Amino acid sequence: MITSMSNPQIKEVQQLLKKAKTRREERVFVAEGIKMFREAPADRLCKVYVSETFAGKTEFEDILRGKSLNPDSDKVEIVDDKVFKSLSDTVTPQGVLCLISMGNWSLQDIMKETEYPLLMVLEDLQDPGNLGTIIRTGEGAGVTGVILSKTSVDVFNPKVIRSTMGSIYRVPVIYVDSIEEEVVPMLKTYGITTYAAHLKGENNYDQEDYSKGTAFFIGNEGNGLTDELTACADTLIKIPMAGQVESLNAAMASGILMYEAARQRR
Amino acid sequence: MITSMSNPQIKEVQQLLKKAKTRREERVFVAEGIKMFREAPADRLCKVYVSETFAGKTEFEDILRGKSLNPDSDKVEIVDDKVFKSLSDTVTPQGVLCLISMGNWSLQDIMKETEYPLLMVLEDLQDPGNLGTIIRTGEGAGVTGVILSKTSVDVFNPKVIRSTMGSIYRVPVIYVDSIEEEVVPMLKTYGITTYAAHLKGENNYDQEDYSKGTAFFIGNEGNGLTDELTACADTLIKIPMAGQVESLNAAMASGILMYEAARQRR
Repeated sequence: MITSMSNPQIKEVQQLLKKAKTRREERVFVAEGIKMFREAPADRLCKVYVSETFAGKTEFEDILRGKSLNPDSDKVEIVDDKVFKSLSDTVTPQGVLCLISMGNWSLQDIMKETEYPLLMVLEDLQDPGNLGTIIRTGEGAGVTGVILSKTSVDVFNPKVIRSTMGSIYRVPVIYVDSIEEEVVPMLKTYGITTYAAHLKGENNYDQEDYSKGTAFFIGNEGNGLTDELTACADTLIKIPMAGQVESLNAAMASGILMYEAARQRR
Repeated sequence: MITSMSNPQIKEVQQLLKKAKTRREERVFVAEGIKMFREAPADRLCKVYVSETFAGKTEFEDILRGKSLNPDSDKVEIVDDKVFKSLSDTVTPQGVLCLISMGNWSLQDIMKETEYPLLMVLEDLQDPGNLGTIIRTGEGAGVTGVILSKTSVDVFNPKVIRSTMGSIYRVPVIYVDSIEEEVVPMLKTYGITTYAAHLKGENNYDQEDYSKGTAFFIGNEGNGLTDELTACADTLIKIPMAGQVESLNAAMASGILMYEAARQRR
């Protein structure tokens, strides 16, 4: 059992929680809580840290067994309750925290995985809650993957992880240096039509056909899409807004577009 | 100019920021920032507190003039920059903060305002960001009003105000002691059909007709709708979810339903 705050493993988890750079270097992220533990893919689960209290519960052993692990496994570390609390990002920790290895998807993977991919392309998205919500809603709407500019918020930030409610395990997420140079040409190659949600859109979003390969471009929360990426889109669409609303929240706009695509595809 | 932190007006604003009870008693709420000042309805603007720095800018005087006020008005108080900062909810305050009197809508007002109202009925909603997003998206989708159970988060909480992006001024919001007893009978009287987003819904949400009077019931983030309110709904609808998603975020579910209604009504 780990009983000291200065235990090197505890220090490593703290670094992984705090620093995107450490996460990138080790290709591992931290997922906290019972639901995240339950849904963790067994083949990507590197380590489970469990509080003394939670380790004593049958719920813990049941989930562990579901992943073909037992409490004596090298992958399981029991941690003194107080030390565990220092790792937790929440006020009332549930007593379990996993290290998960990052998925390894390529742009090509997600573009040829299905005949008609449904992709979200996010440029410079900054809010962790927005990204988490887009991934969670995206899984619900059946997206094939989420592509982000490298200037966007880190998807392995604990706040993003939490707000995905487990979808982080299942929705492929890929960062690119340049959407214009890396993603746009490949979308063309695979015959995927690109739509930018934009105030200057001519047609309402529901007047387009998303039943074939579709990618939606969504921009930064404050500034919207850059002119450069807007110019790359095949079609500008608008989400009509009544009253004096100037724009919708980026996650909300994404959700409305993804669910319109899902509606058309049913 | 106000230069002291112990000035009674400053103390009052602090109370209004912190306490829902004070806001309810005085029927006033605080709206911070330039956008919120610009969009504040002149007839409900009780007071403007402006930092010394922002008071010197032409932008301030322009907005003030737009509301037929001048800097010498009783409604305008200039505040020392440091004291202003102590009032602000943000890290880099924009230098202006308004006291706004609460709107005064009745359930009857919003149910007979238009021939076919579009209403959101929120039961025990707890997250300030969710409520703000529902109000902002709701204005965009053209909702007639938002009704909340009194156990829900306070709409005049500074976090909600901020995330409405000004829609708080324009979307009627009404709290009720009991949705079942006060709202449901009135919805029936006015011939408004009620839909509950529910996992047990038979039809997908897009298979129903929302072109006539429509009210959507949305439940608490963690627990969903109570059985009592679910039983009051005319129709249970479901938002289909791919993958392993169990539910959508409450604001996202609301937005998808409101924009489906807006789509059908166009």
